[in-house]
Amino acid sequence: MRPSLGFYVTYTLSLCLGLLCLLFVSCWSSLWRGGFSWTGSPLEFNWHPVLMVSGLVVLHGNAALVYRVPFTWRQRKQTWKLVHAGLMLVGFILSVLGLYVVFDYHRGLNLTHLYSLHSWVGICTVAVFALQWILGLAGFLFPCSPLCFRSNLKPVHVCVGKAILILSLISCVSGITEKLQLVLNGSSGEPYSSLPVEGKFANFLGLLIVSFGLVVLGILSKDNWQRPETDGEAIHLLPREDSI
Amino acid sequence: MRPSLGFYVTYTLSLCLGLLCLLFVSCWSSLWRGGFSWTGSPLEFNWHPVLMVSGLVVLHGNAALVYRVPFTWRQRKQTWKLVHAGLMLVGFILSVLGLYVVFDYHRGLNLTHLYSLHSWVGICTVAVFALQWILGLAGFLFPCSPLCFRSNLKPVHVCVGKAILILSLISCVSGITEKLQLVLNGSSGEPYSSLPVEGKFANFLGLLIVSFGLVVLGILSKDNWQRPETDGEAIHLLPREDSI
Repeated sequence: MRPSLGFYVTYTLSLCLGLLCLLFVSCWSSLWRGGFSWTGSPLEFNWHPVLMVSGLVVLHGNAALVYRVPFTWRQRKQTWKLVHAGLMLVGFILSVLGLYVVFDYHRGLNLTHLYSLHSWVGICTVAVFALQWILGLAGFLFPCSPLCFRSNLKPVHVCVGKAILILSLISCVSGITEKLQLVLNGSSGEPYSSLPVEGKFANFLGLLIVSFGLVVLGILSKDNWQRPETDGEAIHLLPREDSI
Repeated sequence: MRPSLGFYVTYTLSLCLGLLCLLFVSCWSSLWRGGFSWTGSPLEFNWHPVLMVSGLVVLHGNAALVYRVPFTWRQRKQTWKLVHAGLMLVGFILSVLGLYVVFDYHRGLNLTHLYSLHSWVGICTVAVFALQWILGLAGFLFPCSPLCFRSNLKPVHVCVGKAILILSLISCVSGITEKLQLVLNGSSGEPYSSLPVEGKFANFLGLLIVSFGLVVLGILSKDNWQRPETDGEAIHLLPREDSI
């Protein structure tokens, strides 16, 4: 199968949007929210949006696209399964660190944990992400996993992966909304409703995150951009083989 | 093709979740936010969540599933295209009414329009919905639409339909987040961070909306639950026929 120009254009767009998301979320935390600090400072919170956008959205989205990149098609699928699982693991660790900093920040200032809709959706997203990674490891990387488990798991794994990305978009946009409502309250500067530069900038970050997610989901929905199954990989579907 | 038990279970789940979304959003507006009123009252705003959840989420989701219901497979596709377009139109009108009430409410209280991330995502969602409906009408219901336009439009129409549903979920969850932050601010009752009953109830509404959307997207992603194309419908793909 010949890679199409359409794929390369859309994939480049997803890479650019991903980089812009990282740039914008880092700038928001550092330029408007006072920068970063570790345990014991209110600035610890500022890691939260950076870690969540990096782990749950940008790394997760790029890990999902690994099999679509035509450059990888000439190499063993097993190698790219390890890359896919590795990127997902880094994404998951970043999102757990993102949760850690927000819990630690709340503890330091004696604030309530997990009261908002954002936190409910966010914690569900990370929990489903953990379950998906463990089941993916058990099903697709353990050589002894039964074929019936692997073949039944594959469509569920694909579907849940897309659901995690959608949940991540919802978590990020509701998180930005919550943070802007809390910090741009008018008591110490321009209110959110007067749309100060920070408000515009963070709103634009939200639109970038949504655009990145939709472009990734669009690429995943195109069947003719899928990695072609070679004879060797088809054989892996037979019992005692280690690949789906 | 024989309809599967899996479809009926998942479709029933989507119907139950849709009804629960309508029930919860109506209860939130009427029991905690003071009920409904028309132009000239602050209670006018309370129509906004009800109209948006009904139009952009529940009606839109059900309209997207129309072709999947096995009951419709024995009837002409053209009939169900009209039902699909009709339900989408009602959903769109409800969402435009939802925008009208919020603009009118802002005007009455001299509040700023379109400053928040929720409003930016929401207005984009309704604009894409309008474009999708007009293009769908031109491509699939006008008898004179060229075949090449129709066949190129179909995959885009399917993909954009899913994107609109995802944007609707993001708009609704960020909208609930914004509203709860604004009204449960502690100045006239329990703050959101102490998770009063209203906070729990509206958070749960958010989870119901997300669950409904994910179940609908899950049904749409199952290729073997698609309406089987009959010979007659396949002929419609030839020039001068009026169906895709």
